Amino acid sequence: MGEVRAQIRQGLWTAHTSGLARDHVQGNVVILPEAQAGDFLRFCQRNRKPCPLLAVSEPGQNMLPSLGQDINICTDVPRYRVWHRGELVDEPTDISALWRDDLVSFVIGCSFSFEQALLDDGLPLRHIEQGRNVAMYRSNLQTEAAGPFGGPVVVSMRPMRAAAAIRAIQITSRFSEVHGAPLHIGDPSLIGITDLSRPDYGDAVDVMPDELPVFWACGVTPQAAIQQARPEFCITHAPGAMLITDLFNHQLASF
Amino acid sequence: MGEVRAQIRQGLWTAHTSGLARDHVQGNVVILPEAQAGDFLRFCQRNRKPCPLLAVSEPGQNMLPSLGQDINICTDVPRYRVWHRGELVDEPTDISALWRDDLVSFVIGCSFSFEQALLDDGLPLRHIEQGRNVAMYRSNLQTEAAGPFGGPVVVSMRPMRAAAAIRAIQITSRFSEVHGAPLHIGDPSLIGITDLSRPDYGDAVDVMPDELPVFWACGVTPQAAIQQARPEFCITHAPGAMLITDLFNHQLASF
Repeated sequence: MGEVRAQIRQGLWTAHTSGLARDHVQGNVVILPEAQAGDFLRFCQRNRKPCPLLAVSEPGQNMLPSLGQDINICTDVPRYRVWHRGELVDEPTDISALWRDDLVSFVIGCSFSFEQALLDDGLPLRHIEQGRNVAMYRSNLQTEAAGPFGGPVVVSMRPMRAAAAIRAIQITSRFSEVHGAPLHIGDPSLIGITDLSRPDYGDAVDVMPDELPVFWACGVTPQAAIQQARPEFCITHAPGAMLITDLFNHQLASF
Repeated sequence: MGEVRAQIRQGLWTAHTSGLARDHVQGNVVILPEAQAGDFLRFCQRNRKPCPLLAVSEPGQNMLPSLGQDINICTDVPRYRVWHRGELVDEPTDISALWRDDLVSFVIGCSFSFEQALLDDGLPLRHIEQGRNVAMYRSNLQTEAAGPFGGPVVVSMRPMRAAAAIRAIQITSRFSEVHGAPLHIGDPSLIGITDLSRPDYGDAVDVMPDELPVFWACGVTPQAAIQQARPEFCITHAPGAMLITDLFNHQLASF
């Protein structure tokens, strides 16, 4: 894991992190000025299924000691997204030059944490088999707003045969800190998704005729909220390109 | 519950017991001569999901003290089925006249036990809303045989919206002594069921366009095994017309 983070820090790995350092907790990242941080914190509290908070930094602090001894939020995400008034303006691999004394970092749990438990149980995950990022969609399920933050719940989708889907529901129910059980299973149109082959984030994967699409709440949900809230300044990770922490996924499991 | 059992004993209630005495454990019943009981006991052990054993009597004993102080297996099932060489020959409401010194009674857990937990959680169950027996089907999933006993797994089906189905999987996973989590969800043809409107046992219920059929292993599976094994003599309950015990359903829940 130290090697992976070192590669990311040096800008040698700038892609998605699905399947990397699989024992370790990965996190979605949102960085906001202190003026918006209170509203965003309440947004996460009210929408814990898509936005389970793993850590919140002190304003201006770029270290996250509760997630790892040497984590530097300015360098340790493979690719960032910089947002001005809700518009994506840049996708750098280092944000040291953008750092400010009033920035607060939020790290939100990620479904990659339960993927290892699914793989350990013998459940295949197509996007990992195919070396792709997971497919993510804006659903018509709505978050509960806080201040300017609101909008749709973003979901990640994994196709599974029925018996595997049932087992995956059991396993992911143990991981309430990383989205927990699925939000939806089956017909995508019932949650406002019209075309599985065109995800809003990540990569499409095939869904076989004997499979059901299984949808989990996704930590990209805040990015949809930021597009709606249009804060003056914000930095997030690029979808799928996560912060890899020192924590172990099995530490997040209940039972 | 005592009143319900008294009514059944007197022959005043001869229909299915879905929704009756809801706090109490109900059981599927199989009564076989001792000569076949060993094979059948191994059949149940090898197929614990459809055939979770709650009690096995001593040969010739018509009482089941571990399930209730005064339970008499000859009178306390609303309707029985009598089988000769795998053929259904009668459906009496009392089997006292058929009792023999060599008969062994098996009581097998029933999905009605987890239905109360589903209802308590606010999940609607259509067959109870409509006052019908649950719909049951012979699937193409196969039991593991023991002696002459084998054949298909029989499943019960409840239609649910996706979020309710996910919650139902969580809840029924706690009830491993009464079939536990579903075996299948979604497309019925994947487990060999061609027409949901024509169940093999029980009553059909509507499946709405926004619902998934959810399938649990069913304690009627032994009746399919008996039709295949063709034992010289056998008595079962009529599908849906269960033995109501003194045990409480919540006693069967883990966690």
